[in-house]
Amino acid sequence: MTDSVLSYALDHEPQLIADLKILVSYPSVGADPAMAPGMEDARLFIEARINAMGFQNAQRLTPPGGSGQAALFAERLDAPGRPTILVYAHYDVQPPDPLDKWLSAPFEAVERDGKLFGRGISDDKAPMIIALDTLAAFIAVEGRLPVNVKLLIEGEEETGSPSLPGILETHRDLLAADAVLSADGARWRPDLVALNVGSRGNTGFEMRVQTAAQDLHSGRYGGIVANPLHVMAGLVAGLHDAQGRITAAGFYDGVAEPTAAERAEFAAIPYDEAAAFGAIEAQPRGEAGYSTLERLWMRPTLDVNGMWGGYTGVGSKTVIPNEAFAKLTMRLVPGQDPQRAKQSVIDHLRAQLPPFATLEVYADRGEGGAYAVPPDHPLLTAAGAALEQTTGQLPLKVRIGASLPLTEIVHRILGIDTVMFSFAIADENFHAPNEFFRLSSITDGLAAWTQILRQIADITPDAFAPYRRR
Amino acid sequence: MTDSVLSYALDHEPQLIADLKILVSYPSVGADPAMAPGMEDARLFIEARINAMGFQNAQRLTPPGGSGQAALFAERLDAPGRPTILVYAHYDVQPPDPLDKWLSAPFEAVERDGKLFGRGISDDKAPMIIALDTLAAFIAVEGRLPVNVKLLIEGEEETGSPSLPGILETHRDLLAADAVLSADGARWRPDLVALNVGSRGNTGFEMRVQTAAQDLHSGRYGGIVANPLHVMAGLVAGLHDAQGRITAAGFYDGVAEPTAAERAEFAAIPYDEAAAFGAIEAQPRGEAGYSTLERLWMRPTLDVNGMWGGYTGVGSKTVIPNEAFAKLTMRLVPGQDPQRAKQSVIDHLRAQLPPFATLEVYADRGEGGAYAVPPDHPLLTAAGAALEQTTGQLPLKVRIGASLPLTEIVHRILGIDTVMFSFAIADENFHAPNEFFRLSSITDGLAAWTQILRQIADITPDAFAPYRRR
Repeated sequence: MTDSVLSYALDHEPQLIADLKILVSYPSVGADPAMAPGMEDARLFIEARINAMGFQNAQRLTPPGGSGQAALFAERLDAPGRPTILVYAHYDVQPPDPLDKWLSAPFEAVERDGKLFGRGISDDKAPMIIALDTLAAFIAVEGRLPVNVKLLIEGEEETGSPSLPGILETHRDLLAADAVLSADGARWRPDLVALNVGSRGNTGFEMRVQTAAQDLHSGRYGGIVANPLHVMAGLVAGLHDAQGRITAAGFYDGVAEPTAAERAEFAAIPYDEAAAFGAIEAQPRGEAGYSTLERLWMRPTLDVNGMWGGYTGVGSKTVIPNEAFAKLTMRLVPGQDPQRAKQSVIDHLRAQLPPFATLEVYADRGEGGAYAVPPDHPLLTAAGAALEQTTGQLPLKVRIGASLPLTEIVHRILGIDTVMFSFAIADENFHAPNEFFRLSSITDGLAAWTQILRQIADITPDAFAPYRRR
Repeated sequence: MTDSVLSYALDHEPQLIADLKILVSYPSVGADPAMAPGMEDARLFIEARINAMGFQNAQRLTPPGGSGQAALFAERLDAPGRPTILVYAHYDVQPPDPLDKWLSAPFEAVERDGKLFGRGISDDKAPMIIALDTLAAFIAVEGRLPVNVKLLIEGEEETGSPSLPGILETHRDLLAADAVLSADGARWRPDLVALNVGSRGNTGFEMRVQTAAQDLHSGRYGGIVANPLHVMAGLVAGLHDAQGRITAAGFYDGVAEPTAAERAEFAAIPYDEAAAFGAIEAQPRGEAGYSTLERLWMRPTLDVNGMWGGYTGVGSKTVIPNEAFAKLTMRLVPGQDPQRAKQSVIDHLRAQLPPFATLEVYADRGEGGAYAVPPDHPLLTAAGAALEQTTGQLPLKVRIGASLPLTEIVHRILGIDTVMFSFAIADENFHAPNEFFRLSSITDGLAAWTQILRQIADITPDAFAPYRRR
């Protein structure tokens, strides 16, 4: 059965690629003030494209306070009685450094071996264009969208979305929707059709242990004073028990054990553990009683990311330093309260601190919660059906061990759920030189986006009500 | 009872001070090639002085291999049947940096408040001149020395005496003596008459723990791989037990417990622990069952002097590093074999290393053993008697927690013992700006050196035989 909308979209792939090349040519590096013109060029290009598609109420949602990059908004509400979907993407990209590692200019999309190379092409310009072109195809062929669509195209994703919470709070009514469908994200692996249904949160802090007012000579003080490096080592060594379990009382409060169904689901995922660990020359190591994927997707972590103190230069110095430092971060899972989890670690450290040392905790990283889309959420069901129909494979439900601030922020502020529906693949060198996007993913993406919009059209808006939190 | 030799020496104090000012004016910084002329000036000055005193066989003992600073040698063997003493001093000084902290020019001896200020004046030019002037007074008044004297005046003390072992080995016969009397060293405190009878040795190494081939992102790998900072923390935390005792099996082999007499001696030493620790805002902390002075003087240590890994810059980076580093040194006590003690720590670390990490040990610091002069050594007895007679106080026997390579090298290669008989005091800013020497110490030193030489003259050379190791 041929879908006329999809046929139209596929026929226009050359135009899509031409547009993508233009968009890649704009160096929209939000982190670099010198690239502000590239950011503005990207905004103008997208706004022109949206206006041409008959979107209405187009506006720039400027960050509260006035500084920061505007998010682009527009809507087409031409499907009364049908669900309203907020489609998310972002127009900013990572800096291109290190430039000397690129095989072609980062801001010139170049085709090699069935791939288009360029900064931001996979994260997230091609996936965004695929979503927009699918919408354009519906409008061109059917004269309207099958569902109500609001667009939210952010300009600060690569810098941690600092303004997004404020924008969402300020424009809560404008952005009201039944769910978010994100063109950002990434498929786990090129060989598997998968849907990402969860991510971990994160938080952290820095700490300093002090044992004396000044550095001391090991000849004059060795053996009679505490060494803060040893104190720090004791604190860090005491963060986990022999089973790899975090020892801070209360840290696991609210963490749900994987269900038998989840364990079975994870176990069924084709995952070559030996190859994955062989590639990094490491051995699987983590909390006892969990598989690698359970550890990565369902268990919280506590890691020291940096630790230092004393003399670290060339040669030897017989010093007993007076202070030692560490940076710690946690990855959190659904059910954990980030503030409470972090406080449990700080309380634990203070309780373990010997009486002859002082501990200072500072550089609080803020808190980003974990997120999981409810397993029976109608948009997730629609996404699964769309992928199954267009690929012939039942998509695996996977998670990521990293954080997706978008999903948690949207859930916290708008009270709705997000399904990641990107056609980037995790091996496409985001944030690294020679970022690329597979040309074949354009076809896959157009097909899947056409299909998911048709799937959503079949959902009654009431079906979202049970998942709405306000 | 007036000692005519001492009277002569005291009468010539103005000449001693004038000579000292000249010697301080020569910037004999051995570590700085630009100051080679200062080194040569110091050598020529001392050689002229020694020749004027009728010393014979004067020669420069050049380091084997040809590079390095020559040690000066000369002898007067005009006391047949009496002991032969090797008098040690050094003519090199520490660099004067930081220059802006000096209140007067470092290479111009300036008098203020009963002190002479200048680089190297306390370490070791004034103590050396005191020894030489005492010898000169004997020669002037009595026409001969009361004992046979060999002089060894080194030029690499401040750079760790790298050539000294080779020089001693090459000139074993030339340097043959019953014992060494060192004009270098330092009295512990200005308020106490004390003899230093022991020092700790030291050795060390650097180590690297690795858990993967590359740094990993904590979102993609957090919870499924080992963190080398945690592994390092575990290794360091496991170096000591809860009693502050070093856990490496065999580390304490050969270490003697303090005897009841030593404990009583240490306990009798006036030592204001609260003031000492208050000054550095630290608390006494060390191996259980020992006093602070016992810990510092009689117990070996194991300290991490530097530890680092991961991200140590400003802000946060969600990295799980693949390696962690630490620099370790040990302070050793008499009876310990430095090589075996170090190996016991390395073996312990390897035994504690979890199977998912690798450990590399490198940057071996070499080994310097500890040293203690035998408590009944005749030269020590002579030194004690000389101090008691000239000060009216029974000198305390103290040790230092730092290392005196000279004593250990001399004992190892020449098989003889060393008594430190310096009139520098430990608070005189050696190795720091505004180094000074108390003018009153010149009188004290001349008196004590006159007296110790007379005491040594009363010892039969056979009395040294039991202490000779060969």
